[in-house]
Amino acid sequence: MSSQPNHPALLIPGPIEFDDAVLQSMSHYSESHVGAPFVATFSETLSMLRKLFQTTDPSSQPFVISGSGTLGWDLVAANLAEPGDDVLVLHTGYFADSFADCFETYGVKATQLKAPIGSRPQLPEIEKALKEKKYKLLTVTHVDTSTGVLSELKALSEMVHRVSPETLVIVDGVCSVGCEEIEFDKWQLDGVITASQKAIGCPAGLSISMFSGRAVKTFQSRKTPPGSYFASFKNWMPIMQNYEAKKASYFATPSPQLIHALHTSLTQILSRPLAERFATHRETSQKIKKAVTDLGLKQLASDAADQANGMTAIYLPENVKAPELLPNLLKKGVIFAGGLHKEIAAKYIRFGHMGVSVTDPKRDDIDRAIQALQNGLSEAGYQKA
Amino acid sequence: MSSQPNHPALLIPGPIEFDDAVLQSMSHYSESHVGAPFVATFSETLSMLRKLFQTTDPSSQPFVISGSGTLGWDLVAANLAEPGDDVLVLHTGYFADSFADCFETYGVKATQLKAPIGSRPQLPEIEKALKEKKYKLLTVTHVDTSTGVLSELKALSEMVHRVSPETLVIVDGVCSVGCEEIEFDKWQLDGVITASQKAIGCPAGLSISMFSGRAVKTFQSRKTPPGSYFASFKNWMPIMQNYEAKKASYFATPSPQLIHALHTSLTQILSRPLAERFATHRETSQKIKKAVTDLGLKQLASDAADQANGMTAIYLPENVKAPELLPNLLKKGVIFAGGLHKEIAAKYIRFGHMGVSVTDPKRDDIDRAIQALQNGLSEAGYQKA
Ligand SMILES: Cc1ncc(COP(=O)(O)O)c(C=O)c1O
Ligand SMILES: Cc1ncc(COP(=O)(O)O)c(C=O)c1O
Repeated sequence: MSSQPNHPALLIPGPIEFDDAVLQSMSHYSESHVGAPFVATFSETLSMLRKLFQTTDPSSQPFVISGSGTLGWDLVAANLAEPGDDVLVLHTGYFADSFADCFETYGVKATQLKAPIGSRPQLPEIEKALKEKKYKLLTVTHVDTSTGVLSELKALSEMVHRVSPETLVIVDGVCSVGCEEIEFDKWQLDGVITASQKAIGCPAGLSISMFSGRAVKTFQSRKTPPGSYFASFKNWMPIMQNYEAKKASYFATPSPQLIHALHTSLTQILSRPLAERFATHRETSQKIKKAVTDLGLKQLASDAADQANGMTAIYLPENVKAPELLPNLLKKGVIFAGGLHKEIAAKYIRFGHMGVSVTDPKRDDIDRAIQALQNGLSEAGYQKA
Repeated sequence: MSSQPNHPALLIPGPIEFDDAVLQSMSHYSESHVGAPFVATFSETLSMLRKLFQTTDPSSQPFVISGSGTLGWDLVAANLAEPGDDVLVLHTGYFADSFADCFETYGVKATQLKAPIGSRPQLPEIEKALKEKKYKLLTVTHVDTSTGVLSELKALSEMVHRVSPETLVIVDGVCSVGCEEIEFDKWQLDGVITASQKAIGCPAGLSISMFSGRAVKTFQSRKTPPGSYFASFKNWMPIMQNYEAKKASYFATPSPQLIHALHTSLTQILSRPLAERFATHRETSQKIKKAVTDLGLKQLASDAADQANGMTAIYLPENVKAPELLPNLLKKGVIFAGGLHKEIAAKYIRFGHMGVSVTDPKRDDIDRAIQALQNGLSEAGYQKA
């Protein structure tokens, strides 16, 4: 039995539904942020993150900081690039625009490489861009939450290392860590930033990231001090290293309750092989995508290889309006999200399928959602052509 | 009956003990950050903050952002000052050094006015400093958590408005909001930054602040863009205004669970007159300070008028060592904090007395703590001279 009162299933691309045990950890009694019990919890949490990101290289550095996914952009822009540096931002939707804005805030010149809505920049054009200019780092949105487009990291990183070996490979994994395969070491990634509230399955409030030894060295050889105080590696790195080594340490007060919840969700995730978790997300995603196609609907991500496994962005039929459909779905007990990509926001909806809604066999969120979508569309007068 | 398992009473100057209902709100089931139910909760929370800060001026602007107290410094330094500006930082301990560091990160020149440990800069010297140079803003730590020194805001603000009317008056209220009197409007304050985990009585993870219409105008007339992305007024102000007006809006995902907990704690605080809450903290503080004096011990804050009402920083007797005393107090079920002021950290301990430990008549945390301190000292061989 769930300890959560009856409530609509939250199937937006984050925040997601949370497991009972994770939510119970949120009410942990108060502990000192520098006392031995909490220090041990934080230490284990940081070690578990290494497993989640699949890194065993001791020079990799995890960070968990009160904030949200957005703060990860500040971590990258204020620590790994310096004013005047050029960076290449691969654009697959809304979130690349914001990441680019963040770079500009810190005086970093962001060049965006854009693809048509629903697709992603292709390797040959990225290679060409990298050959034309020296970029300090390249960023890629692993899953763009505004379009449901999945980017391919392995081949991208290989190409960057071949063509421009000094360019750091930085991944916005806010909508992918925990549901899409990421092999930090093997793919030679330099930074993956994410947040707690999506596929990691812990309430919002944490910026979570992993940086490579190479990224740390880039930081250490800066000529200018970091551009942010709250997001400064200089301030946080010794703290993270101390916590992981079970030594109390203070820069700014962490949230023991959120860290406990993250500890619980990571323990659950790592209790089974990660490969199995990714496969389950893939299978569920395929079931959903098939149902969408069977309904005669199209996705923003037209090419199957570019489709995310933790969410689906679905074009609405001509005469169905999101401001009418979404409240009707809510009445049926499921919450979907509206569109987010500025140019076409009114024309599509987003269905998030990450975490316990997908992995917990006792839950029927996904089947109920597919059913609700079918009924909702037919009640809106839609019939497959 | 408490729903929290038996645990030592956390009597450090933050995080503090939390009420059962506040902790239960932390486990709220997942909600969309842009759905009507959560938007209503956030709206009410922002309105309640106006009451807590005692501001009815509609041009005052509250902010609640995932982060911690430290993020409030970035809000001030990156939005209210511009590179090259001079600011005056009144120094009463550890936290002024860090605030000054934060200003320097954003290219702002921080001049510190220091007082001997345990006291605070006096009005005549502050007045002199303000007459010597034009300062964009002045900061004062209302309660310096490293020394337990309380600063006087009313007379200070009056003097600043008289001597240097263009200088903004900014208060670090991380260790004072919720337990020390603050009249935002009447005292003509321009900014008070705080955090959730101290006298407000909500788990750590939130930066909470209030800025005056004058501060907002200062921001709006900047010549340079804000220095931070995650801490940018430009990004957050419309979001806060929308949420308060019950309109969904997105810049970065807030934490519904933390906001629910804050909503619960603010509802509890505002269910009784604020004056009564401050009086209760004052009375309990006086009882503790009397017990400390009766034990023959001295406080860092030597002058009674400079002593905080939510914490007490106590010099240890000659032969008593904190690394032995504190674990013994833990065995007796109370957690105190060690010293934090770099120059004398080993020589004193800190006793936090804020929130439910003080206001909830069903709790005996404070009496148990005084008793534990008496016994712990005598077990350490200390006898009053
Ligand atoms: C791909 C991506 N990047 C960054 C963010 C920003 O994260 P947050 O909203 O937690 O600040 C999001 C949020 O949805 C996202 O989906
Ligand atoms: C007076 C004061 N200012 C700022 C801070 C920083 O707040 P946080 O640790 O929540 O980042 C603290 C924390 O104890 C504090 O006491």
